[in-house]
Amino acid sequence: MIGRLNHVAIAVPDLEAAAEQYRNTLGAEVGPAQDESEHGVTVVFITLPNTKIELLHPLGEDSPINGFLQKNPSGGIHHICYEVDDIRAARDQLVASGSRVLGSGEPKIGAHGKPVLFLHPKDFQGCLVELEEV
Amino acid sequence: MIGRLNHVAIAVPDLEAAAEQYRNTLGAEVGPAQDESEHGVTVVFITLPNTKIELLHPLGEDSPINGFLQKNPSGGIHHICYEVDDIRAARDQLVASGSRVLGSGEPKIGAHGKPVLFLHPKDFQGCLVELEEV
Repeated sequence: MIGRLNHVAIAVPDLEAAAEQYRNTLGAEVGPAQDESEHGVTVVFITLPNTKIELLHPLGEDSPINGFLQKNPSGGIHHICYEVDDIRAARDQLVASGSRVLGSGEPKIGAHGKPVLFLHPKDFQGCLVELEEV
Repeated sequence: MIGRLNHVAIAVPDLEAAAEQYRNTLGAEVGPAQDESEHGVTVVFITLPNTKIELLHPLGEDSPINGFLQKNPSGGIHHICYEVDDIRAARDQLVASGSRVLGSGEPKIGAHGKPVLFLHPKDFQGCLVELEEV
């Protein structure tokens, strides 16, 4: 069912400093900051040869990242995203096997303009797992 | 400096259950469990089309994963590993820019038989970062 690892998302307290570190200290290809107001985050994508790192920073008081950064003030790895061919078929199969989908269970459009869903961390070794249809 | 994302490591309380979930529920290619006694872990590698997931389980009472699982009983994402061409050159450049290397600072041989180093999470947005020479 799962295909490529689309990205690893890292929540960061200082987006500018994190982007600068990946660009200058780690020598990676770092894109511009993009506000994703419907998701309550500002994101910076880092393009590695085989996958992406997504730096996440809260946008607005209701950002889903605020609680994570309160618990992890230095930042931390927030989620991993696997690609799937058919997100509704993947969801139905996962739900049938007892896994929980966060929110309404209906895919939303994610930061790449593709349908995404998040799975319950308690059902996946404590990891927040995003599925993205590609 | 950094190249491919070599793997994402997930610490898990039940290695058998996690491997079974990736194999049967998520339909991924899951390898056999391997004891890495010098690192205090048992690992299972999951091969995705573009990178790997490393499931980590403590091996022995001094395992470096024990503390993590005490804080995160359901498990969680433990570290990410970036590939570098020359690990000593990468280390020297990082140390010169103020980053801290864990342990003695000398590379050890990792689970893939290649030299590895770990960087201080406080210097990298709360993420434990492994570098592996390829």
